[in-house]
Amino acid sequence: MSKGITSRNEDYSQWYNELVTKADLAEHSSVRGCMVIKPYGYSIWEKMQAALDKMFKDTGHTNAYFPLFIPKSFFSKEASHVEGFATECAVVTHYRLKNDGSGNIIVDEEAKLEEELIVRPTSETIIWNTYRGWIQSYRDLPILVNQWANVVRWEMRTRLFLRTAEFLWQEGHTAHATSEEAIEEAEKMLHVYADFAENWLAVPVVRGVKTPNERFAGAIETYCIEALMQDGKALQAGTSHFLGQNFAKAFDVKFTSKEGKLDHVWATSWGVSTRLMGALIMAHSDDQGLVLPPKLAPIQVVIVPIYKSAEELNRISEVADALVKELKAMDISVKFDDRDTQRPGFKFAEYELKGVPVRVAMGARDLENGTAEIARRDTREKQTVNQEGLASYIENLLGEIQENIYQKALKFRNDSITKADTYEDFKKILDEKGGFVSAHWDGTPETEQRIKEETKATIRCIPLDNALEDGVCILTGQPSKQRVLFARAY
Amino acid sequence: MSKGITSRNEDYSQWYNELVTKADLAEHSSVRGCMVIKPYGYSIWEKMQAALDKMFKDTGHTNAYFPLFIPKSFFSKEASHVEGFATECAVVTHYRLKNDGSGNIIVDEEAKLEEELIVRPTSETIIWNTYRGWIQSYRDLPILVNQWANVVRWEMRTRLFLRTAEFLWQEGHTAHATSEEAIEEAEKMLHVYADFAENWLAVPVVRGVKTPNERFAGAIETYCIEALMQDGKALQAGTSHFLGQNFAKAFDVKFTSKEGKLDHVWATSWGVSTRLMGALIMAHSDDQGLVLPPKLAPIQVVIVPIYKSAEELNRISEVADALVKELKAMDISVKFDDRDTQRPGFKFAEYELKGVPVRVAMGARDLENGTAEIARRDTREKQTVNQEGLASYIENLLGEIQENIYQKALKFRNDSITKADTYEDFKKILDEKGGFVSAHWDGTPETEQRIKEETKATIRCIPLDNALEDGVCILTGQPSKQRVLFARAY
Ligand SMILES: [Zn+2]
Ligand SMILES: [Zn+2]
Repeated sequence: MSKGITSRNEDYSQWYNELVTKADLAEHSSVRGCMVIKPYGYSIWEKMQAALDKMFKDTGHTNAYFPLFIPKSFFSKEASHVEGFATECAVVTHYRLKNDGSGNIIVDEEAKLEEELIVRPTSETIIWNTYRGWIQSYRDLPILVNQWANVVRWEMRTRLFLRTAEFLWQEGHTAHATSEEAIEEAEKMLHVYADFAENWLAVPVVRGVKTPNERFAGAIETYCIEALMQDGKALQAGTSHFLGQNFAKAFDVKFTSKEGKLDHVWATSWGVSTRLMGALIMAHSDDQGLVLPPKLAPIQVVIVPIYKSAEELNRISEVADALVKELKAMDISVKFDDRDTQRPGFKFAEYELKGVPVRVAMGARDLENGTAEIARRDTREKQTVNQEGLASYIENLLGEIQENIYQKALKFRNDSITKADTYEDFKKILDEKGGFVSAHWDGTPETEQRIKEETKATIRCIPLDNALEDGVCILTGQPSKQRVLFARAY
Repeated sequence: MSKGITSRNEDYSQWYNELVTKADLAEHSSVRGCMVIKPYGYSIWEKMQAALDKMFKDTGHTNAYFPLFIPKSFFSKEASHVEGFATECAVVTHYRLKNDGSGNIIVDEEAKLEEELIVRPTSETIIWNTYRGWIQSYRDLPILVNQWANVVRWEMRTRLFLRTAEFLWQEGHTAHATSEEAIEEAEKMLHVYADFAENWLAVPVVRGVKTPNERFAGAIETYCIEALMQDGKALQAGTSHFLGQNFAKAFDVKFTSKEGKLDHVWATSWGVSTRLMGALIMAHSDDQGLVLPPKLAPIQVVIVPIYKSAEELNRISEVADALVKELKAMDISVKFDDRDTQRPGFKFAEYELKGVPVRVAMGARDLENGTAEIARRDTREKQTVNQEGLASYIENLLGEIQENIYQKALKFRNDSITKADTYEDFKKILDEKGGFVSAHWDGTPETEQRIKEETKATIRCIPLDNALEDGVCILTGQPSKQRVLFARAY
């Protein structure tokens, strides 16, 4: 593992790309815009899935599965929805290939679909078409369903995890009898996402709502969590939408209330995706490689023996095997790397690159002294520790690393929220410091759009519980009642 | 839940269709051939996934994810493979929709793909194209990767779970340095599948190999497990393929051996799908509804209170809550159904329909006597049992039910293997008794094909460790060295 990676200072974007491929997380496939998620990367995603899935179930949701394909006519029923996704749809038009007679495989023109099928970019339409059959009365509500699935949004410029034509995600789709209940659900799931981001990814997030410009196509309100990457750019880490009755109206989904009144059903949808892998990587990692929060690390502890003879290795293995057993009993995932094909220095570099939170090294001297050398990945500090009580020491250390990574990211994020009261200041902060800029805005889409065009910064969100404050818009000087958070973003 | 379902005797096929929809397992979607897996059905699939995933990991495999789309040219590289799948491929030809100016959403003809993309019907081609980049030397082998994914095979006649255009599955794809090792892997995974079928689904299976006619497109050998449904038809429940060097050659995947020799890599692939849901349903269920093996039941125990007053319900609830707590501590999933909107009889029918293995009913009399009424779903027997030690009693009962369901299916399967020595007998058994017919076959594809055309029976497999026995083919009278298993099949 001697291949170095470009440093963040040198080229942040290149650093990211190299890290993703060299740490064996993912790679570009031969299919334009689609990625291969490699076993090591996928095992991190599995840990995310397991934690999120439990949180969804603990809040009363169940999983289901809906079709990959959406008939074009369904897709077109909610006007703003189709407008939002039309330009990035993969379209299935045929259902058969054939041999052209001279050995070439071609599309069989006789097997043309009467109606084209869209590969789902999101599933509101097919799901609400299904819900029509599931909902008659208030007794059938709420429906609290989630789906783990792949979706496709055709992208011209792709980056591994951050923007790919196909990605993996979960999409919750709930149906409610009242507007209030649906809004409560949308907000609840936003907080579930925020808790997950902060307590599992160790990434602090701002909870807020999007401006109308940035809303999901078909939503009345889009809640979001916004994270900050080390290069000062923001990343939208999850969204939760209050959809009002838009999809119920488009798909004619009505229910009879307790009072016997017929009304359209209220909806939410919410999702996070493999994009979270990008957030995780960019928020914590350093020039030596990945830094993983222990709660999501596929290997939490690695033990590397340092030996000169088979006899030494045997003696080290005895101690190591006992430690492995103890750690496993604590539900800590541990690997004892006794490969004799690689030297310790190579292994050290490999596990640094892969972000293993705790490394234990043991040599002949350690055996004599009853010690081990512990290196933590986050600070790269090393310490000599007694073998007695080592498992508990490591268990505590993992907790400490999880907390330290979060606090470091939190401090960086908090230091990166800067107030700007003039447009000059605003642009200067964006160019020189980056991060979130907290500024007054006159509330019009036109101003938002012009600022975006001139500075590449978008309004990331209006934070929940934002303080009201009189001020004037940085661009137009029009009166404003609150600051909003701008940033350049992924 | 008073809606009865058609009985098996009356119309087995109709019984199955009604059961799947009325027990809330799945339904047809508005997309031709694609199903919606409803929450209750999906929760059974999740249990299957969890058990299989653990078995795969325990045998050294890791998960990864490969693209949904396969370029047509890749797909065509392995000749017999493309021939096997060409007629059932969904083809993506465009990547954008547009408004035609008069408000209609149409496919944007300017956004036509240079090369069509196939929605994966299976992933050998895209995966072996990827493996080329992962494998240089014997040190990179074996690769033991599995993928959980959706796949699409365009089907004209579909049935929920058994045959759908889109289905969910897992596909293992492994790469090896030697032919022996690959064969060992293919056989190992066959046994993993058989263990899963027998110990989790409670469905006995015959382990065997397919005849060349029935092999996977691109395989040298296809191993399979074959189950028997209650109507006497066979169902292929899983396959594991030894692919030789076919895909390595098609995608030019070579490795340097320990001895420094360059050779093509050896491959296996293996998969099971949501078809297992169909097997599960058809193997055990009865005219009252689903019968689920406890190990895969989303709700293993339901407690139904029988009360005349709120005060009675309160007293029952106290006992029930304590039981719930005890069962949960034993990792048994339990539901206390104290809905006051439905009467006990309705609830009893509902849980019978949904296959909950154990039902506990408690009324005022039971409180007085310190008892409860226990009904087991498999035999529909009821018993009055002391509340003391009830949790342990239930735990044991769940194990007993799991075993009983399996033994019942095993007896039926064993009773349904019939020897035939003449073609007349063979046809008579198929028509009157069904099940597997063990008969001599001359080993030619032509004979197999003619028998299929004349009787609709196919060779399900040549059982592993088949006894050798001299005989003559039931159709041609040609000499044969062993019997094979024929059946009509799903
Ligand atoms: Zn936001
Ligand atoms: Zn077979």
